[in-house]
Amino acid sequence: MSEQINLPRRRIMAAAGAAAAWAGLGTAHADSTEPASKSNPGPVSAAKPLPEYAQWKHADSMIVHSANTIETRRDAFGNSVVTPLNRLFVRNNVSPPNASIMADPDAWVVEVQGVGKPQSFTVADLKTMGLQALPMVLQCSGNGRAYFEHKPGGTQWQVGAAGCVVFTGVPVKAVVEALGGVANGMVYMTGTGGEEIPAGLDPNTVMVERSVPLEAMQDAILAWEVNGEPLPLAHGGPLRLIVPGYTGVNSVKYLKRLAFTKEQSMASIQQNSYRMTDIGVKGAATFPAVWQMPPKSWITSPSSPDAPVKAGKVVIGGLAMGGVDAATKIEVSLNGGKDWQAAQFVGPDLGKYAWRQFAFQANLKPGSYNLACRTTNAKGETQPADRVENNRGYNNNSWRDHMVTINVV
Amino acid sequence: MSEQINLPRRRIMAAAGAAAAWAGLGTAHADSTEPASKSNPGPVSAAKPLPEYAQWKHADSMIVHSANTIETRRDAFGNSVVTPLNRLFVRNNVSPPNASIMADPDAWVVEVQGVGKPQSFTVADLKTMGLQALPMVLQCSGNGRAYFEHKPGGTQWQVGAAGCVVFTGVPVKAVVEALGGVANGMVYMTGTGGEEIPAGLDPNTVMVERSVPLEAMQDAILAWEVNGEPLPLAHGGPLRLIVPGYTGVNSVKYLKRLAFTKEQSMASIQQNSYRMTDIGVKGAATFPAVWQMPPKSWITSPSSPDAPVKAGKVVIGGLAMGGVDAATKIEVSLNGGKDWQAAQFVGPDLGKYAWRQFAFQANLKPGSYNLACRTTNAKGETQPADRVENNRGYNNNSWRDHMVTINVV
Repeated sequence: MSEQINLPRRRIMAAAGAAAAWAGLGTAHADSTEPASKSNPGPVSAAKPLPEYAQWKHADSMIVHSANTIETRRDAFGNSVVTPLNRLFVRNNVSPPNASIMADPDAWVVEVQGVGKPQSFTVADLKTMGLQALPMVLQCSGNGRAYFEHKPGGTQWQVGAAGCVVFTGVPVKAVVEALGGVANGMVYMTGTGGEEIPAGLDPNTVMVERSVPLEAMQDAILAWEVNGEPLPLAHGGPLRLIVPGYTGVNSVKYLKRLAFTKEQSMASIQQNSYRMTDIGVKGAATFPAVWQMPPKSWITSPSSPDAPVKAGKVVIGGLAMGGVDAATKIEVSLNGGKDWQAAQFVGPDLGKYAWRQFAFQANLKPGSYNLACRTTNAKGETQPADRVENNRGYNNNSWRDHMVTINVV
Repeated sequence: MSEQINLPRRRIMAAAGAAAAWAGLGTAHADSTEPASKSNPGPVSAAKPLPEYAQWKHADSMIVHSANTIETRRDAFGNSVVTPLNRLFVRNNVSPPNASIMADPDAWVVEVQGVGKPQSFTVADLKTMGLQALPMVLQCSGNGRAYFEHKPGGTQWQVGAAGCVVFTGVPVKAVVEALGGVANGMVYMTGTGGEEIPAGLDPNTVMVERSVPLEAMQDAILAWEVNGEPLPLAHGGPLRLIVPGYTGVNSVKYLKRLAFTKEQSMASIQQNSYRMTDIGVKGAATFPAVWQMPPKSWITSPSSPDAPVKAGKVVIGGLAMGGVDAATKIEVSLNGGKDWQAAQFVGPDLGKYAWRQFAFQANLKPGSYNLACRTTNAKGETQPADRVENNRGYNNNSWRDHMVTINVV
């Protein structure tokens, strides 16, 4: 047995030069459940390799921006509501901790503070305190940034920094109740990530510590599982704070501290980043924080101008999320938003924090079509035509920005 | 680049001798999303290797009975309702077709007969005709066979020939409506699998062709996707007939023909196998067919007598299915069925064909406990203490047979 076969296959491929190796190996992928098909050709040239901690992702379904920013291709979400873990986006603000923290996930320790009786728990302890499965949209604050015209810095996410997954763990409420409730006067729930802080740096400059309003505690969980699998390192294992309805950065990975606090975290990621400011204006604590998500939808199929669609009957499919309220209505336009028609939600409703999949049966003659969709949530908020312009390119839910052009032949 | 790296990694491992290779490679699995953990040690010795077409399964979560029969370990279902595809059981009545049929799944052809206007469709055609996502329990007729005392022949499944997954495709009703409806006088829906029939054999002896009552058409779909991924060969891709509420054999894989018929299929798998007969009596068309599933539940954690449980608070978790009606009630017993207490369903309700996960909060002193659970469905049918004895060991839903013993220390 040669040394080589101890290396996971993707690493071997990366070492051999990803583009060349992928072309040479054709459709065989060791960690794929099916060969690459014509309908999902994947990026075969100039693609960056998946980083080691996410090498188990389905490469053909992903766009690798960097080792810490990996998005799902628009045509790779599927139509089964829940996003498969091997197709779920990855976004780390700083590099994840060493993989050795996954050797014994049950031994991971989290401190709980700002409660009647502060205490530390292992994950094994938490598993005795309650159980909840929470279907929800996990979405990066910057999803859709690629469509801003002022070209904000940061990852140029299109639609794929989002997924609908089922996190499983213990309700935060159950933990807090066991500790005598939230201490008097606390107004934020603050989570601290377990990433390593390089020596000599002021922790506030790099640490991932986020505060959300106390009310977000109601449906939050401490999760050790996602989609039925132990929470992998790439998604915050051994333990992640999950805040449904809020953008992904608020669901702190590698959670080492959960605190109820009077003030927001002093970390730069809370004070300066993730703030809604006008273009050209730097973030600061005086500007609104990026917390709750607005309603949003996008078409997933057909979605490529490069893959001609056969004239006649076409099923247009997509995804719609309501933010913190359920998506209750979805409309589709075949002509760039001039006319709208009701589309149907299809498949199961996993609750208000999940997205719904939708379908629209069209009969299309040859030509070019600008397909758009817009959703409305239970609060009556409708996805707008125009994005809310902001310096860093957060919370883009413009239906116009998310249109796709298809060619029918 | 050596020749060797063209081989998927598991094949290399299998070639090197599975047990030795697995022990040597420790916790690194190319197709695993996390290292094997203490809580999920997996069978590291004397385990059979996964067959090539299912090598992407999470080996530590599976029990490989044979190349065509692979079950999920009782502690590997997770608590996120949907069973991850890499942990889903595999059962093929005969070997699957050559993997080359997956090269272009959209080109796969199915004939539809016994309708107003019989016609053939490619999968690409079907994708223009409708879209439905269907969460449901897929369960082998023989799941639980290991607990029969008369030791029926066939795979000795424990609880793991079952999973709750989301199949996605087109409703059979939509296809039938497009073809002018079911022809007069038809009373069965018959699916024919695309497995190769060895030359010289009477097709009826080996072909996988199953008939179910016409009413089963109502919620059936023709599926090309499962859990958001293109339906893999191991689970019936490119196209599978999905009959929710019925045992797995009725959901015919590699579907090449869907026919509405006056008679049941003449294939042996319909006429002689999958019949409920008394012990010692061979199957025949005069005995009841194995079609609809009865209500059933089992505890998944804690579930091993070999893993001592710490005294104090314990969350007992498990799964409950109602068959063709929703599971509406779940009870747990800590003393082998003498006393019962209500447990809670937790997590989302994916509809009547899906299972529910449940949790029961216990406070256990040191000792040995026989944990049991029983469910009741919307029709008022409760899981019985005793199995229905039958020659081949089908449909075991006895709560007593599915008890687990745990040791609390």
